[in-house]
Parts: sequence; structure tokens; C-alpha cells
Amino acid sequence: MVVKVYGPHCASTKRVLVCLIEKEIEFEVVPVDVFKGEHKDPDYLKLQPFGAVPVIKDGDYTLYESRAIMRYYAEKYRSQGVELLGKTIEERGLVEQWLEVEAQNYNPPAYNLALHGLFPSLIGNNPDPKVIEESEAKLVKVLNIYEERLSKNKYLAGDFFSLVDISHLPFTDYIVNHMGKDYLIKDRKHVCAWWDDISSRPSWTKVLELYRPPI
Amino acid sequence: MVVKVYGPHCASTKRVLVCLIEKEIEFEVVPVDVFKGEHKDPDYLKLQPFGAVPVIKDGDYTLYESRAIMRYYAEKYRSQGVELLGKTIEERGLVEQWLEVEAQNYNPPAYNLALHGLFPSLIGNNPDPKVIEESEAKLVKVLNIYEERLSKNKYLAGDFFSLVDISHLPFTDYIVNHMGKDYLIKDRKHVCAWWDDISSRPSWTKVLELYRPPI
Repeated sequence: MVVKVYGPHCASTKRVLVCLIEKEIEFEVVPVDVFKGEHKDPDYLKLQPFGAVPVIKDGDYTLYESRAIMRYYAEKYRSQGVELLGKTIEERGLVEQWLEVEAQNYNPPAYNLALHGLFPSLIGNNPDPKVIEESEAKLVKVLNIYEERLSKNKYLAGDFFSLVDISHLPFTDYIVNHMGKDYLIKDRKHVCAWWDDISSRPSWTKVLELYRPPI
Repeated sequence: MVVKVYGPHCASTKRVLVCLIEKEIEFEVVPVDVFKGEHKDPDYLKLQPFGAVPVIKDGDYTLYESRAIMRYYAEKYRSQGVELLGKTIEERGLVEQWLEVEAQNYNPPAYNLALHGLFPSLIGNNPDPKVIEESEAKLVKVLNIYEERLSKNKYLAGDFFSLVDISHLPFTDYIVNHMGKDYLIKDRKHVCAWWDDISSRPSWTKVLELYRPPI
């Protein structure tokens, strides 16, 4: 069964696409144009009642929330492709911890930075410089903790690549390559080495080639 | 090995405590007084660099982020106590989906409502009525989707109790029992039945008895 992925051009969906490629799972995509508001169409809301991307359909099974979808496939195809959950229950615990850190501490300011700095048309062309400033200040604090962590471990969850690193790719790419804020990454030696490593993985470069962002 | 749980009087920690009780895992608690700022003490920051509760120590293993800790114990002791991750990989996928919904959609407005409405001393005694109003409006939208979901399933992830339901307990308790906003739950038939069910579990009543909140 080929996995159908809705909204491939959106940042959150790219987490799922990278995960599927790393796990060697076949997929096809269904475009959802958020600039035309297609994520609020009644038919789409039947799949995802909160009106967000991505959603996957896998036969009769429907799932949303990018990190939940990644966990599902990383577990379902545990022995296929790259192991993305760590090898032991303790390693998986750390994957879950840092995935929560990404979702709760890193992503909210990175998302706001992208929304107000890159895609103001999605918020009525009314970007707020205060939100941009506060978001950057929050990211600095998080990245200082990452720098310390990455001085002792090659990746965030430990010395193994995982869903945590994948989950950082789309919004860090905006920061580094589209917002002129690459200094946030480049000024931190270990964060920079980590970013160079994870952003040069073939799975990520392939997703960027195939699905240029609208967001 | 007895699990040490830091900060038992805090709402997020209560998720972990309920999970440990449901899984029949022995624990002891280490108080962390957030009103005295103990979560920002240098020794505590060595355990949890973001200065948040909870943290657990289990022998040499340290883990933070309440939902990550719950997942760790629910998986480690899968066959002990109540199954909290669903029986199949597909059910676990739905647990993960709704746990993300709780973390991304429900908890942020519920948290802000509690912070500004119940614990203003934590934000310099300067509660913002606009934040309270906007948070309630966001909760209404989420709860309307929950009402639809719970009209078809006894619990959020399906017809089985799970980490998702546990994760809603502490902040929904504030809303229902401490903020005079019980109408948000009571006015929705299926949400109300779900709340009556999960909030009457012995694990939750025991946690409430043992560790009255400061937050």
C-alpha cells in the first residue's frame, strides 16, 4: 500500500517525507494549497478537523500531526531503513524527551519567526517586529542549551541520528537559508557541525528538490 | 529501583504520577518549590537545563518532559498495570496523534488560562484579561472538535483509556474545579461524560489527595 501524504510543500509535512525516505517507504503526495486556504475546505477538515497539514492515508488508516506520523512509521518499519527511535527503550526515552523539547521549546519561536519574517501573507500581511525579536531571543536560549548538549553528543538524543534531528530540519532551513539568520546556527560550533551533518543527508536534499516550500 | 519524581506539586508532574500509579510502579518524590524559584537553581538546571518540571531519576537514568516520561514507562512496563499505549501499532499511532493535539492545541490555552487566571504571582501579578479571553476562545474550538470525537469514541484515542486522557487531567481539573469555568466541559455532553470518567479514576483522586497544587 502506497502512503498518501497531504500537503508536501508545507514545512511540517517535510518531517514526514524525510522520515519515509529514511525508512525506505513508498509514498505519493496530494497537494494542499494553504495560500488558497485549501486546508480549511470541508473535505479536508473531514480528514484533519483542526485544518492543519500534514495528513497521511495508508489504506483505511488516517493519521495527522507530523511527529505522530513519524513515530508511527519509525515503529511500524523498525527493521527497515535507518533506525530512527534509538536501539533501546532508554534511547527511545531520550528521543521522546528531545522531540518534546523541539515541539515545545524550539518550534514555537522558529515557527513564529518564519510566519512573521517569511510568510506574512498568512497573517494578513501584518508582521509584528516585536514577535520576531522575542522569538529570536527565545531561540537563542534554546540554541545555547543545544550547544552544550551537542558538545557531548553528535546528535540531540545521543550519538545516533533520530526523529529528533529530522524534526528540526524544515524550520532550521528557513532560519539558515531564507531569513538571513544563519548566524544563529553558524556562531555555535557544535550546533553548526550538527546542522551541516543533518542538512546534508540525501533524504533532506531530495525533499527540498522535490517540494519547494510555499511554507 | 524506586523512581524519583521531582516537583510532585506541579500540574505537569501529575501526568507522570498518574501514569506511574496506573502502571503500578513504585516512586518517591522530591519537592521543587517553583514559587521560590527552585526550578532555576543551578543544581536543578543540571538535571533539567530548561528549568522546568518534572524530571525523573531512575538509577543513573534521568529524563524530563512529562509526556516523554509517560511514554517511557508505558513502554518499559507494557505488560504491567493498565495498557496506556493501545494494543496495536495503529492504536499507538492514534495515541501519539491525540497526545500531539493535547500538547499543541489544548495545553497552550489551558496553561495560559491557569497562569493568568489562577497563578498570577508567577507572571509578576500582572494577569492579562486579553490572554484569558483569547485562551478561552481557543479552548472552545478545540473542545468542539473533542465533542465530535467523543460522540464516536469513549476516549480520545479510541475506545481505550490511554496516555492521552491522563495528559488532559491536571489542567482540565483547574478549569473545572478552580477557575469557575466548568461550563466549558459541562456544556458538552460527550466531553462531560469523558471528564466524569477519567477524573474519577482512583489514580487521579490519589494524586490530588497526596499532592495539592501550588501549580
